Amino acid sequence: MDLQALLDDIAARSAPMAAGGRVADYIPRLAQVDPGRFGMALATVDDALVGTGDDRTPFSIQSISKVFALILVLARDGGRLWSRVGREPSGDPFNSLVQLEHEQGIPRNPFINAGALVVTDRLLSLTGDAFGAVRTFLREESAQEVDMDPEVAGSEAAHGHRNAALAHFMASFGNLENPVDQVLDHYFRQCALAMDCRGLARAGLLLARHGMRGDGSRLLSPSEAKRVNAVMLTCGTYDTAGEFAYRVGLPGKSGVGGGILAVIPGRGALCVWGPALEPSGNSLAGVEALDRLTTATGWSVF
Amino acid sequence: MDLQALLDDIAARSAPMAAGGRVADYIPRLAQVDPGRFGMALATVDDALVGTGDDRTPFSIQSISKVFALILVLARDGGRLWSRVGREPSGDPFNSLVQLEHEQGIPRNPFINAGALVVTDRLLSLTGDAFGAVRTFLREESAQEVDMDPEVAGSEAAHGHRNAALAHFMASFGNLENPVDQVLDHYFRQCALAMDCRGLARAGLLLARHGMRGDGSRLLSPSEAKRVNAVMLTCGTYDTAGEFAYRVGLPGKSGVGGGILAVIPGRGALCVWGPALEPSGNSLAGVEALDRLTTATGWSVF
Amino acid sequence: MDLQALLDDIAARSAPMAAGGRVADYIPRLAQVDPGRFGMALATVDDALVGTGDDRTPFSIQSISKVFALILVLARDGGRLWSRVGREPSGDPFNSLVQLEHEQGIPRNPFINAGALVVTDRLLSLTGDAFGAVRTFLREESAQEVDMDPEVAGSEAAHGHRNAALAHFMASFGNLENPVDQVLDHYFRQCALAMDCRGLARAGLLLARHGMRGDGSRLLSPSEAKRVNAVMLTCGTYDTAGEFAYRVGLPGKSGVGGGILAVIPGRGALCVWGPALEPSGNSLAGVEALDRLTTATGWSVF
Amino acid sequence: MDLQALLDDIAARSAPMAAGGRVADYIPRLAQVDPGRFGMALATVDDALVGTGDDRTPFSIQSISKVFALILVLARDGGRLWSRVGREPSGDPFNSLVQLEHEQGIPRNPFINAGALVVTDRLLSLTGDAFGAVRTFLREESAQEVDMDPEVAGSEAAHGHRNAALAHFMASFGNLENPVDQVLDHYFRQCALAMDCRGLARAGLLLARHGMRGDGSRLLSPSEAKRVNAVMLTCGTYDTAGEFAYRVGLPGKSGVGGGILAVIPGRGALCVWGPALEPSGNSLAGVEALDRLTTATGWSVF
Repeated sequence: MDLQALLDDIAARSAPMAAGGRVADYIPRLAQVDPGRFGMALATVDDALVGTGDDRTPFSIQSISKVFALILVLARDGGRLWSRVGREPSGDPFNSLVQLEHEQGIPRNPFINAGALVVTDRLLSLTGDAFGAVRTFLREESAQEVDMDPEVAGSEAAHGHRNAALAHFMASFGNLENPVDQVLDHYFRQCALAMDCRGLARAGLLLARHGMRGDGSRLLSPSEAKRVNAVMLTCGTYDTAGEFAYRVGLPGKSGVGGGILAVIPGRGALCVWGPALEPSGNSLAGVEALDRLTTATGWSVF
Repeated sequence: MDLQALLDDIAARSAPMAAGGRVADYIPRLAQVDPGRFGMALATVDDALVGTGDDRTPFSIQSISKVFALILVLARDGGRLWSRVGREPSGDPFNSLVQLEHEQGIPRNPFINAGALVVTDRLLSLTGDAFGAVRTFLREESAQEVDMDPEVAGSEAAHGHRNAALAHFMASFGNLENPVDQVLDHYFRQCALAMDCRGLARAGLLLARHGMRGDGSRLLSPSEAKRVNAVMLTCGTYDTAGEFAYRVGLPGKSGVGGGILAVIPGRGALCVWGPALEPSGNSLAGVEALDRLTTATGWSVF
Repeated sequence: MDLQALLDDIAARSAPMAAGGRVADYIPRLAQVDPGRFGMALATVDDALVGTGDDRTPFSIQSISKVFALILVLARDGGRLWSRVGREPSGDPFNSLVQLEHEQGIPRNPFINAGALVVTDRLLSLTGDAFGAVRTFLREESAQEVDMDPEVAGSEAAHGHRNAALAHFMASFGNLENPVDQVLDHYFRQCALAMDCRGLARAGLLLARHGMRGDGSRLLSPSEAKRVNAVMLTCGTYDTAGEFAYRVGLPGKSGVGGGILAVIPGRGALCVWGPALEPSGNSLAGVEALDRLTTATGWSVF
Repeated sequence: MDLQALLDDIAARSAPMAAGGRVADYIPRLAQVDPGRFGMALATVDDALVGTGDDRTPFSIQSISKVFALILVLARDGGRLWSRVGREPSGDPFNSLVQLEHEQGIPRNPFINAGALVVTDRLLSLTGDAFGAVRTFLREESAQEVDMDPEVAGSEAAHGHRNAALAHFMASFGNLENPVDQVLDHYFRQCALAMDCRGLARAGLLLARHGMRGDGSRLLSPSEAKRVNAVMLTCGTYDTAGEFAYRVGLPGKSGVGGGILAVIPGRGALCVWGPALEPSGNSLAGVEALDRLTTATGWSVF
């Protein structure tokens, strides 16, 4: 299979889907991104890297950072996290407060905002610098410079009333260990990291290699790595996880910056980027490209 | 009717109900109050004042303050408030976030915490000092010293994560005019005002006199005053408004300090105080006493 | 006060409100009613009866029948009903299933459809003929012929999937005593009774007279009658009970046939009819007329 | 790998988990089953069949039948079904009505009861005999006699008020094509089919072979078969799909009879049976056995 030709073809067919979506506009900096951009990169476990389009343009990774924060907490803390956050799909919009109320401040999973705040809170307790830990890890795995976009981080902080509400609400149930403002600060900065498709695909290889880092050291056990994949598949794309599993059939995590990271267990990791989103917050062109790729290759886990 | 004898008798029969309830314990200062205290006072529109038991002991008025903040906003701003807060019973626990999510940041009514925060926010915009406006009004109407208990206010601020969550959540929908921390500060202090039954009963006369202040000046039109009574009857006792209307049949507003203010339109205002609460947050002995009073006198509005 | 002139004036000013509403269309027979019809009648405790407009035109009483079924159960069975149905406003659309799920098959109050089915079920157990008991009572109190419109009853049965769902759902929690189809049959027929404003106003006098029937016999104790009024005020107009209390300030019960029965405790009972409804299911012209009446007369309970 | 030894070992270690669970008791016939029974069978795409324990004892397949009804509808009708039922995890107990209310009668997915009723309704329209179509298919694929347990079917019908409520509720939104009682009749009978682990494992091979029947004919396209697997993984185990994916990592569908069918794409199909359930309705020993198997073999899809 000529992967380069395949990716080029998929990019050409998928990029036009952007016309039906909208760039996230609640963060001014994100709203300025050209919705027509499209990039895609595939990193394989045997160290090949194929990319197409805007695969070298950094974008705001946003919620994709949640995967790496989760990995770092599990690596340091084992399964203790699961007493503070669940592993079930939310069945609700990604920043819903309803479920938190019904379940006593325990978020449904680590990928909705409330759950990600708990993960960042725990990482802050474990490392003293949650943001720094995520950034360092991403730099090492991607072999790229990875930096925060201060303008994005500032916008998040200014407009982050919903996340502040979530954090205070969990604090009211005793489910935060650190002060609300510190947790929010690390969370906003972690979401404001900028990377390109190539770097994110390389960083995602950890999950394709069942827990092995790029340098050959083990960070997660194979079981733990597989379980992160399972959480990505059932909870990684807001309230459309079922739809994503149905169409794409891979563990994936999307961000409102328009990126989606997908894992092909044992084989590789993919990152697509297209800033125009469908209403649930996933990249329209990105989901289309992943659908086309797994249909063409049969790489769905099913 | 010998009102003094009636109140003494009702107090003797109602105070023992306290044994079945619990003092609010989320604020340390409130948790120290003796659950066996009981006071009751009736102020009439013809200036009589009858009291029994601990009717001269100040207690934390808590949510009863919401009635007066509402009156002050309506007096200055007419019906404009109702675009930002509804008038329907909540059908949910008093600090629920669920409804706010479903209804785009518009609280159901001005007596649930979210709605009261909107009222305080508006009063702050209108006066520059929401807390001061409430305190001044209560001093004038009650002819008492009325002061904040700083220890209570401090506890509220320290443990107020739920209220902070509500405020941030409404801010995320654009339904706050002032910064979250300022609104919370005025709200916590307003709730921490301390008064006794006699003072609150006197202050409540405004609603019994259909909008006339103690000095004979008009603050609300008769229609507006009646409408505040209607909101108290349908929304004044957390999620037991139906039960309260059924048993007592008067507009009433309770607070977790154990006080309940009730209005007998055209006739007088009552305040009862008993710190032991039922699970919804209303004074057990207080509701019992009001039930007995309206049964004995027929003063239910129905 | 010239009541006739007042009612004529209110009718003239209120009837045009119908233009902003829609006739209930889920029952074909109701959909055929002219939305411009308007009638109003006031019966007083001293046996006066004043009417205006289409006050002698029978219409489908629909949910207003729930008040009378409740009265008949309370008269026979005292407070036992309250273990099977609550007394709190629902805070939800009138036929919602959500609350039933959360509260184990106990409807919030006797005026939402689920609660009314429980009342009819109990009346069926107590009398063997719930429909007949309601009809007989209404005939006696109204001094009118009262009959069911078979076409309306048939439509309800044919389109009554939501009510069937409610009944089966409560049955699944063990909260029905009779077979689902029997309960539904009596319920649909009771709702399909047709009466005019004059007859309903007369029948409503029982609640204005604190439980005394038209023939001078006592059906409910004064406390029970007042409590029915309280339930009407807090729960009688679907999810707009707060709004109705705010505007009108009287216990009231509306039906999707366009009628509203309101009680002026100690003074009289009112019935208005205007088939065009607002989205919650209350007569637009009817609420307007009641608002105007209580504003003009001061007869609000507050 | 000695599969027989592995299965025997897993059975010995997993069967004792039953002590912590309870047999489904809402159907008298199911309540009589010995909770200590345990069977397991693995059918592979190369026609091997290994079993252990009570792998030849028929049990009530209950909700596992939903997978086959779905397959039969997709085979006849393609993707048209998805306009009437979603593909998202429910995030709620399996027979919840709440979501249906919020989403206008469109069930979240085909494996919650409401969705399965829609599937059976459609299969009834397509075939004239939904029950018969499922039974015939299962007979052919399992190469077993497959029959309904009339006592189970009768119990379902007698106690099926919740399913009747669901069906009427969907009918009220126009989301049923056939009369409610007919749909329920076919659904209750389909759930009352009895099979053993060996038969179900063989029938499940269709999904492991990406849509090929046992006789070599194609029923579903590879994409469609993979998509059924995706729906099983995200929605197949009531409100614990995330947990099941995390622990087991295979598409699976459980039934309250204590069976679980799991698919190892490209490799085989498994059926475990242990009647004692955890609170969500999945076999305790069954989930344990599947967890042990995928841990030991690495056959998780992740």
